[in-house]
Amino acid sequence: MRLEGGFWGPRLETNRRVTLPIQLEQCRKTGRIDAWRLTWKPGEPNPPHIFWDSDVGKWIEAAAYSLAQHPDPQLEAAIDEVVELMAAAQLPDGYLNSHYVAVEPQNRWTNLRDNHELYCAGHLMEGAVAYYQATGKRKFLNILCRYADHIAAVFGRDEGQLHGYCGHPEIELALVKLYRVTGEEGYLEQARYFIDERGTQPHYYDIEARMRGDDPGRYWAKTYEYLQAHAPFRQQDKVVGHAVRAMYLYSGAADVAAETGDLSLLEACKRLWEHVTTRRMYVTGGFGPTHTNEGFTFDYDLPNETAYAETCASIAFLFWSHRLLQIEGDSRYADEMERALYNGILSGVSLSGDRFFYANPLAVYPPAFANRGPTMGAVRQEWFDCACCPPNLARLLASLGGYIYSMDAQGIYVHLYVQGQAELQLPAGSVRIEQETEYPWNETVCLKVFPEKSLRFNLALRLPGWCRAPHARVNGEEINLHSLTRLGYAHVERQWQPGDMVELSLPMPVERIEAHPRVRMDAGRVALQRGPLVYCLEEADNGSDLHDLGLARGAEFMVEIDPALDGARVLVAQAMRRDISGWGGNLYRQTPSRQIRAQIKAVPYHLWGNRQVGEMLVWLRELG
Amino acid sequence: MRLEGGFWGPRLETNRRVTLPIQLEQCRKTGRIDAWRLTWKPGEPNPPHIFWDSDVGKWIEAAAYSLAQHPDPQLEAAIDEVVELMAAAQLPDGYLNSHYVAVEPQNRWTNLRDNHELYCAGHLMEGAVAYYQATGKRKFLNILCRYADHIAAVFGRDEGQLHGYCGHPEIELALVKLYRVTGEEGYLEQARYFIDERGTQPHYYDIEARMRGDDPGRYWAKTYEYLQAHAPFRQQDKVVGHAVRAMYLYSGAADVAAETGDLSLLEACKRLWEHVTTRRMYVTGGFGPTHTNEGFTFDYDLPNETAYAETCASIAFLFWSHRLLQIEGDSRYADEMERALYNGILSGVSLSGDRFFYANPLAVYPPAFANRGPTMGAVRQEWFDCACCPPNLARLLASLGGYIYSMDAQGIYVHLYVQGQAELQLPAGSVRIEQETEYPWNETVCLKVFPEKSLRFNLALRLPGWCRAPHARVNGEEINLHSLTRLGYAHVERQWQPGDMVELSLPMPVERIEAHPRVRMDAGRVALQRGPLVYCLEEADNGSDLHDLGLARGAEFMVEIDPALDGARVLVAQAMRRDISGWGGNLYRQTPSRQIRAQIKAVPYHLWGNRQVGEMLVWLRELG
Repeated sequence: MRLEGGFWGPRLETNRRVTLPIQLEQCRKTGRIDAWRLTWKPGEPNPPHIFWDSDVGKWIEAAAYSLAQHPDPQLEAAIDEVVELMAAAQLPDGYLNSHYVAVEPQNRWTNLRDNHELYCAGHLMEGAVAYYQATGKRKFLNILCRYADHIAAVFGRDEGQLHGYCGHPEIELALVKLYRVTGEEGYLEQARYFIDERGTQPHYYDIEARMRGDDPGRYWAKTYEYLQAHAPFRQQDKVVGHAVRAMYLYSGAADVAAETGDLSLLEACKRLWEHVTTRRMYVTGGFGPTHTNEGFTFDYDLPNETAYAETCASIAFLFWSHRLLQIEGDSRYADEMERALYNGILSGVSLSGDRFFYANPLAVYPPAFANRGPTMGAVRQEWFDCACCPPNLARLLASLGGYIYSMDAQGIYVHLYVQGQAELQLPAGSVRIEQETEYPWNETVCLKVFPEKSLRFNLALRLPGWCRAPHARVNGEEINLHSLTRLGYAHVERQWQPGDMVELSLPMPVERIEAHPRVRMDAGRVALQRGPLVYCLEEADNGSDLHDLGLARGAEFMVEIDPALDGARVLVAQAMRRDISGWGGNLYRQTPSRQIRAQIKAVPYHLWGNRQVGEMLVWLRELG
Repeated sequence: MRLEGGFWGPRLETNRRVTLPIQLEQCRKTGRIDAWRLTWKPGEPNPPHIFWDSDVGKWIEAAAYSLAQHPDPQLEAAIDEVVELMAAAQLPDGYLNSHYVAVEPQNRWTNLRDNHELYCAGHLMEGAVAYYQATGKRKFLNILCRYADHIAAVFGRDEGQLHGYCGHPEIELALVKLYRVTGEEGYLEQARYFIDERGTQPHYYDIEARMRGDDPGRYWAKTYEYLQAHAPFRQQDKVVGHAVRAMYLYSGAADVAAETGDLSLLEACKRLWEHVTTRRMYVTGGFGPTHTNEGFTFDYDLPNETAYAETCASIAFLFWSHRLLQIEGDSRYADEMERALYNGILSGVSLSGDRFFYANPLAVYPPAFANRGPTMGAVRQEWFDCACCPPNLARLLASLGGYIYSMDAQGIYVHLYVQGQAELQLPAGSVRIEQETEYPWNETVCLKVFPEKSLRFNLALRLPGWCRAPHARVNGEEINLHSLTRLGYAHVERQWQPGDMVELSLPMPVERIEAHPRVRMDAGRVALQRGPLVYCLEEADNGSDLHDLGLARGAEFMVEIDPALDGARVLVAQAMRRDISGWGGNLYRQTPSRQIRAQIKAVPYHLWGNRQVGEMLVWLRELG
């Protein structure tokens, strides 16, 4: 799948040309690469941190996806160099962790609850799988297989094994990837074990804490809900705790369900997905309203200014939704993937590709953000001490092509509309599909279908949930989408000839979105959406005190192209605001304020913060 | 001044009959009284806390005010018993502190920044002054004079003295009280010293921290703004930090300014008062928007649900405003006193007199309050570990009669309209004034004036700032208020005869209050006010999801008497809300919701939380 031109082409090129190199540079200069030399000694500054391996693993994964499309000997050499360091760092028993080996070798596997040891292993595995798939080189993969074998020996139900699992899920889905690429069923079994063991009694984190001499009752996070270990997975029915941990766990569970056909796992996944998307999801596809636990609070609690909505959580939600989509074939999963992708994920990286958001609030008032620190600030940062988000963005963007299509026995599913071309292998032959579209800026998608020869198959076109009146023509002839649609996909089954053309029209008027009446922060407010894009107001376009703008019910929007924002479609309308000049020194007054007209301009949420620091607002007050 | 009947009579009787006894009981059962026996030994539970003396001091002060009106031998005996314990506990050098003497005698005066030692001294002084004034007994006063003498010897500019001042202001105003009752100028000088020394360089808290072996740079509150010691007092122009500390400091400064005629101190006080009332005050007269520093953040930052707005801060603001009112004679000070009194202060105690709020938020959504702990919960509590607010309420209510009138050379000022009678001593003779009024429930105030003989003097009647069209008649004859009014007081100077009657009419339609456009939380919202009372909606009357109610601009209010709330005047109107039944499982949707009619009922803010636990909302959305 090659994505060129259109909406994504330039963003992916920036990812490759800017983001990947600067992230390697950040890994180098912060010590994350040299950590693998294991030369750190007690008393020295900058000890390898427990998170670092995951950052390197994710960066290699991102670089590998890029290599698969764009060979780059220098980049490949940089990875090989790190792989050599890892090979040398791996202990004879297969153990591999730059923090533990250098800093506290005596403490291996003593604090699964807090210390991310298996999480780091998982990210290295994902990197190794991707690098093997991109280059065919087995060295890195072999290292991680040895590590996975060691992990399988250490963790399990047998006597003498630790009955543990990671406080930060991730290894579960990584082990499934390792299983898929190696065919080793043990890795799948190990993933299943980690999911099945989680949250059982006697509780491993209680036992483990006591073995460390800690009182489990004094757990800093206070509840095992924080890491989704409060109950066995199949009994969980509410999305709780740390949002990224939650979404990685659910992704791994969906993988195991897909591979094993375990319906009880799948049911839990679907129940949790239903819960989060109907009760605990920002309109931007952000997750986790509070920084306190970097996660969830209670139903409908979606504060805008203090939203945490970590970039990683939205990415992990996309992973999870994509997995459920593959199993269920229901476009609702793709709808929410798309929501996250075009809003709460893409907001995580600047247009320039070198600045990142960790938290993605839905309202910014700079004085309130002054003391929040870099992860919760109003300005994208070059890097973070805990740098999970930047390489997560890089790997998602570099692998975006993998989310566009999927195949089943009957044919091809088109999940996302993205300019580019793909070679797809059906049992009866290969098919090239070329998409020409400026989607999501424009409503028209032209799909050209080139089977290697005339071929009968089903082309299932996703009809986005946000679109009220989609239309399609095949070779110029209107087709009745309604009659062809099942679970949100229009199934166009026919004898396809090379050069056949599907023109899909997805009208995207500006929509005013309401939040459920129980979302107390958004009552009397609307979010503006056009196609899959949620919009926001910025101080750069609208002046300060955005909260005081009010939009009349009937106000019409003009859609304009903004050259200053790389051709983004922006929305312009008339609104009202209070005349602040009449207030003088009063803080409160009885006389109603004079309202004055104000033209407003809304920009796509994912583009906010690319100009000067200032206010931002998604949920706009509606008048009347 | 006797306050009987009307609005306040029953509340003050509850204060005397319920609040005072249960607070003594709480002091006893929590160990605050027995602490004075100094029998606590290391290793025992419940060591006397650094705050405890202040609670006892405030309770004695409250009880003393009550005794002055209502002799009660049992209550007096209870106080005398505590005084005996204190007399025995006082060290030969005059030092008096139940925590330090029993728990860490070696650490006296080593942590003024954090440990409230002089603050406790101040509250004991206030108690001693009040008890002396109520009973004429000097023993408690003498104990505190000895302690004040000791303090004067320890703290000052001379060599060998500590150049310190308390992290929690309070002693400044207490020393002025001690000066006023004893005539000892040294106490006034000491108060002035504490104010003048505050925030000077080299900074005492830096020096003190180093002497303790602490790094001053690691001060937990991060900034001396927290305790208003970031700059010398006269240079302070913004109200910052911990709200109660701030208001006590400003009150002490106003006292010193009043006694010494120091205009630079007065100017600073007026500047700070102007700042807080035009930028950082809740419409309820609450202060301090965040629990983080129990205080101030930045201008116009007045979040409702997370408001701290400590009861003590509103009480201390009333103290401060009352002092400035005495100096300046400007009714704006009385207006804001009244705002705090009838809203953010009185909300601090239940109708039953035995439950207290520490924080006074302006919106409550119970699930968001579940984990906030007792001081920030949605339910009034019997007592608090840090129990500053309950006895502060008790002493304010017991002394309320002292805030109604004041005198100057020309006559009498009437600041607050309260049913009751007072004997006032003018140079030329005494005057009894009887107020008959249900204010603030009703708009009519009847003042009967009984000079002991025919007497010429000025009767200055406050015309509340909230009242657009006040009227008055003297002996049935309308007077032209406009021509008589200076600084918000109508000056009625005449030859008063016994039985002369002033009828004041203060029309109190229901007003919709707007907050300044920069208050981002209240944009598009109004607070309902009638007379000095701010209203709120409660779930008990309006069902849940109060945030979703919207009030049309033209909607009219009916004022009704609610027998279930002791005859409170409540407001009833028609509003709209969304029909939640149409939402099904959606979290977001494009179709505008159906609006349905909903009758709303608003109750006085100070009465919220007297029924079942539920939502509460002050700032109501306005439609259109």
